[in-house]
Amino acid sequence: MSTDYRPMWRSLGLDLEAHDALLGVLGPLYEQTFTRQPNRPAGMQYFDFVMSEVHGLRIQELLDAKAAGRKVVGAYCTFVPEEIVLALDAVLVGLCAGAEFATPEVEKYLPRNTCSLIKGAFGFALARVCPYLSASDVVVGENTCDGKKKGYEIFREFVPQLYVMDLPQTKSREGRALMRAEFQRFAGFLETLTGKTLTADALKKGIAVVNAKRSVMHRLASLRRADPAPVSGLDGLLMNQIYFYDDPVRFTSSVSAICDELEQRVERREGVAREGAPRILMSGCPMAVPNWKLPTIVEQAGAVIVGEESCVGERGTQRLTDDTGQTLDDLFDALVDRYLQIDCAIFTPNASRVEHVLSMAGSLRVDGVIHYGLQFCSPYQIEAGPVERRLEKEGLPTLRIDTDYGQEDVGQIQTRVEAFVERLRG
Amino acid sequence: MSTDYRPMWRSLGLDLEAHDALLGVLGPLYEQTFTRQPNRPAGMQYFDFVMSEVHGLRIQELLDAKAAGRKVVGAYCTFVPEEIVLALDAVLVGLCAGAEFATPEVEKYLPRNTCSLIKGAFGFALARVCPYLSASDVVVGENTCDGKKKGYEIFREFVPQLYVMDLPQTKSREGRALMRAEFQRFAGFLETLTGKTLTADALKKGIAVVNAKRSVMHRLASLRRADPAPVSGLDGLLMNQIYFYDDPVRFTSSVSAICDELEQRVERREGVAREGAPRILMSGCPMAVPNWKLPTIVEQAGAVIVGEESCVGERGTQRLTDDTGQTLDDLFDALVDRYLQIDCAIFTPNASRVEHVLSMAGSLRVDGVIHYGLQFCSPYQIEAGPVERRLEKEGLPTLRIDTDYGQEDVGQIQTRVEAFVERLRG
Repeated sequence: MSTDYRPMWRSLGLDLEAHDALLGVLGPLYEQTFTRQPNRPAGMQYFDFVMSEVHGLRIQELLDAKAAGRKVVGAYCTFVPEEIVLALDAVLVGLCAGAEFATPEVEKYLPRNTCSLIKGAFGFALARVCPYLSASDVVVGENTCDGKKKGYEIFREFVPQLYVMDLPQTKSREGRALMRAEFQRFAGFLETLTGKTLTADALKKGIAVVNAKRSVMHRLASLRRADPAPVSGLDGLLMNQIYFYDDPVRFTSSVSAICDELEQRVERREGVAREGAPRILMSGCPMAVPNWKLPTIVEQAGAVIVGEESCVGERGTQRLTDDTGQTLDDLFDALVDRYLQIDCAIFTPNASRVEHVLSMAGSLRVDGVIHYGLQFCSPYQIEAGPVERRLEKEGLPTLRIDTDYGQEDVGQIQTRVEAFVERLRG
Repeated sequence: MSTDYRPMWRSLGLDLEAHDALLGVLGPLYEQTFTRQPNRPAGMQYFDFVMSEVHGLRIQELLDAKAAGRKVVGAYCTFVPEEIVLALDAVLVGLCAGAEFATPEVEKYLPRNTCSLIKGAFGFALARVCPYLSASDVVVGENTCDGKKKGYEIFREFVPQLYVMDLPQTKSREGRALMRAEFQRFAGFLETLTGKTLTADALKKGIAVVNAKRSVMHRLASLRRADPAPVSGLDGLLMNQIYFYDDPVRFTSSVSAICDELEQRVERREGVAREGAPRILMSGCPMAVPNWKLPTIVEQAGAVIVGEESCVGERGTQRLTDDTGQTLDDLFDALVDRYLQIDCAIFTPNASRVEHVLSMAGSLRVDGVIHYGLQFCSPYQIEAGPVERRLEKEGLPTLRIDTDYGQEDVGQIQTRVEAFVERLRG
């Protein structure tokens, strides 16, 4: 970052020393993980730039938006409907949760046996190193897993305004009614926050923007079917991560540009790995920035990741919302139709998730699946067993990796991943 | 047990060898924990008898009920409305989950970081040592915590019939509608299972039986206000545990008889501990038979437990159901009114729980609270922090114990509990 953002960070109440320490780790980690990859598409430069300015220019944009009267809504989950946020001329941004920070302080509030993602969210807040959190007019929590649901009760103390969205646990009629009511309650809350009134026209536009963003991710996913893979799994993940931070329209056109480039690569049979390299689908818990540990190990072992069945991945981007309705009622129904299909492990049963994994595995022509479970994430860790048994039964080699944000197990994971990649080669 | 129940256990498909091993531990543990307590009320003999026959006579009774055409419904949670079960002339029984069994086998299905209660339920099923499970025509699960919700998806493989009841996560209007719909769906399911039709009259009778059972527990609780305490915390817990196993009418009259005895004790100022002994309220996770570890340590340290804010305790027994309604609709509303007030940590927010703890602490005149968290039980472990801070703020010394069913930490817990009891004496 060439600009001096320190006055901005100070004005946001960040702990400058701790924040410097964070950037001092993040920069080199990014450099080492991403920029040295062989044969990267040129279009990835845009994402390098975004990442280099992720705590700088993007925050300045949010502050400019606020100065122009727009509200900033921070969130941690793919269930929060960006369509409604955009329709009220507000901005939705993902909040920091991809690294553990200030863990001794966090463990004054949370049990040690809490997953890294939740500890990470607490750590960024307590250490005052997430400018997105500081720039948010409201933080939206959601009743997904026990850890988040109960954690938000405490998190409330750390932020000026927390709004919690309830979610159903099943896709029953009552579960649907609950989500419908909650989306409407959320819209009402945002109307008060923004001082604007939601109209069907504005919601249609919001849906169109998000549909476009999801569509371009579908295009990206379909290009990753090619062998050789035209883009690495790390870069694929990175785009899925930036999905949560960037301006949606600019993001869409940037991914579209890279898709044009990848299309040419596919035509030329050019890729980031040699043809026939073992192709892997990642499935499981979300990977927030800068949680790149596992995909780095996988691709360093000579495999290429061609898809992410994850909230930061296809679980979050699959399916468009029908925007043909003419009334708010129709459009809310359409939103619920779409969001209720998310295959999150908080639902029981969640049979469509493994079907989605199988369908992705087929269309992406993968050789194996790595199931990524965050330690102490009961929903995905418990689901991992049945998912693994079903995939293996269908002839898909599956490796389960349960880990956290620590680096202690890197050697162990490398050994297991290398053996798995060998199995896929065999 | 004088009768030879082995043919019965064999007919239930139990693993006789493993079951013998279980009883071989359970009998002496019970003897050592309960029967040697000083100055026990004579009425506890009934509960000694019940416990000695808990895998014998009571199972025979269930089989006799089945032979007479009644259905047996097994459950793991206080949210399952016994009133509806009784109204359809079926029997509700609690299922075994208070000890870990066959852990290596269990961990093929569940992550290691799953709480002992859930591992216990799996272990009893996999090892075939729970005659209640074998005698059940249906097992009712419920979407409470993540562990149970996702665990039941796997547990389904181990039992002939599993029925899962959905539950809300908040007490909103939609949450209430969900519980209402689920209670009706449950009634419909039981109608099919039993071949009977639910009537308002039968439901009123079911409510009356359960209200009577809860009322007598309220009477017991009010007698435990006396100093000296007329009954030990271990025996108080035992009655709360047997609440889930025994015939409800017989149980009510047995607790009533012991209350008569305790009333006389209170008049005579006779107790199980000396007057002025530190009085403790237990709060937190449920303690299923034979999980007596923590209360044993507490009472051996010279304190007396005078109440349980727990599902196996007042959280499960507080409040009666209004039985004045004349229609099924009225009565279902009344049931939901009552069950939705349960202060389970699965709800967010769950502010009424700490208010209930404070109210119990006041009326039972306790000197301190011990918060019992099962390791890996996120809802209660996360809630423990705010509960502890609030209680301490109100001047109530509070000790948090997070543990499991293992015995490895007994020494550590003893040390901490003894220091806490000293603090209360000081």
